[in-house]
Amino acid sequence: MPFVLSGSFTFCFQRASMKIIAEKINGTRKRVARAIQERDAVFIQDLAKRQAEAGSSWLDVNAGTHPDQEPDDLLWLVTTVQVAVPETPLCLDSVNPAALRLALQGVKQTPMINSISGEPERLAGILPLVAEHGCPVIALALDGKKIPETAEQRFEIIGRIIKATRAHGVPDTNVYLDPLAMTLSTNPHSALIVLETLRHIRRDYPEAHTTIGLSNFSFGLPARSYVNRTFLSLAIQAGLDSAILDPLDREIQTAILTTEMVLGRDPHCLNFIRASRKGIFDPPHPSS
Amino acid sequence: MPFVLSGSFTFCFQRASMKIIAEKINGTRKRVARAIQERDAVFIQDLAKRQAEAGSSWLDVNAGTHPDQEPDDLLWLVTTVQVAVPETPLCLDSVNPAALRLALQGVKQTPMINSISGEPERLAGILPLVAEHGCPVIALALDGKKIPETAEQRFEIIGRIIKATRAHGVPDTNVYLDPLAMTLSTNPHSALIVLETLRHIRRDYPEAHTTIGLSNFSFGLPARSYVNRTFLSLAIQAGLDSAILDPLDREIQTAILTTEMVLGRDPHCLNFIRASRKGIFDPPHPSS
Repeated sequence: MPFVLSGSFTFCFQRASMKIIAEKINGTRKRVARAIQERDAVFIQDLAKRQAEAGSSWLDVNAGTHPDQEPDDLLWLVTTVQVAVPETPLCLDSVNPAALRLALQGVKQTPMINSISGEPERLAGILPLVAEHGCPVIALALDGKKIPETAEQRFEIIGRIIKATRAHGVPDTNVYLDPLAMTLSTNPHSALIVLETLRHIRRDYPEAHTTIGLSNFSFGLPARSYVNRTFLSLAIQAGLDSAILDPLDREIQTAILTTEMVLGRDPHCLNFIRASRKGIFDPPHPSS
Repeated sequence: MPFVLSGSFTFCFQRASMKIIAEKINGTRKRVARAIQERDAVFIQDLAKRQAEAGSSWLDVNAGTHPDQEPDDLLWLVTTVQVAVPETPLCLDSVNPAALRLALQGVKQTPMINSISGEPERLAGILPLVAEHGCPVIALALDGKKIPETAEQRFEIIGRIIKATRAHGVPDTNVYLDPLAMTLSTNPHSALIVLETLRHIRRDYPEAHTTIGLSNFSFGLPARSYVNRTFLSLAIQAGLDSAILDPLDREIQTAILTTEMVLGRDPHCLNFIRASRKGIFDPPHPSS
């Protein structure tokens, strides 16, 4: 069926399955910050295990934003998480080269790095580490404090980032381009900008990967899970192949499963039917 | 934001809101067939009222497939439904010119006609009625008994239909092109074919409308509501602006509401927030 599986409109349908970058071990969340401060390994390891078991490809680890403590805290997080889930790669969530350098010494699997952007000093500080360690890296469509307002501006920054990653010898297949999913309730075009940027990435950088941080998108709205999962489905159709999200949100998992089946990536619907038999679509227990 | 609201990728974002063609008054359903046979106006009028109140733009009326009885039965349906909901236009669901001609004498509002296809005899029998009465018409991407297997074949048939509707003086704005949503469980490309055909329609016939019959898509699968609403969201993104569906399915209604907000068509999220306050996202009562 050449018309269906080729041509300018269909580039996004041949991507591999969506990969999940698990978001919950994040020191900007109060409960996690306390666990880091108190070196509460049990709490962190439980979060790590549950997220890994939910099918995450990477576990994001963010040690908070205290510049003095971040290197030690991040290394502690890395070491602690790896005791619980040695097989799951981490995603080192820091813009601090010193913290990243220390954490890279402690990892058992090649980690993803989260993140670079178009800012020259961030590129200069982090790209050499990315290149040296062969890490996948998240690249934000951003080059300053202000979020670029249009898809055109974001795509232009992405072009500059790709130029820099290529100049450092980082293959496009290791770059996860993030068009920035901003809050919909404050900008009705938030999703449109992401969807359009994704389509342009797919067209011009077919080897590169894409990602978004999903959770802030629905901030300020009711029924947030509905909003997030609808946006996620549309973004997968537009070319999204990974996302930073809560893998313990069953509605999000069902959205991924269903969208991939609808898009023909679960040929005999086996993943879907299997997950259904395991109860993923059942209503939650009244007690939960 | 010219890059966001113009360009080859964004043609589908400026469409008006999704319109619903309510599917439940259909004589191929056993309970409705009995109501027609017994002239059970109360049952039919209740279905009509509930579907109209759920925001349907048209109420499909299908009197079943007995060639001898169909004209009388369809006229009875039309008359009966209109007593209950005189303001909501009907969608006359028949391929029988005699039944359509009789029903057209009984309608209070200009009805939609469901359907024509690329079959010459169907075009010859029904297009003159469509043109004479200024009816919107559903046109199936079909020209025989066999469903065309590729998007290319369906789009080619659509091209021939548009040629015929234009030749009869029917404006593109009155044509609702249906790419045929076949069962996913028997063909993993079913949705891809629809989505690609929708994108081609939007590109080449920007004035024409689009529609699909949603309900058979998920036939044979578990969690059918998840499957239908995910497909519906993706189809809206690809350019779908109406669908034949069950307007009483709350999950489907929330999918439409959420998708339109995510796509920037509910600028201050007011429709969404209002519907949320009315309880549309609340879990169903345990008793229901």
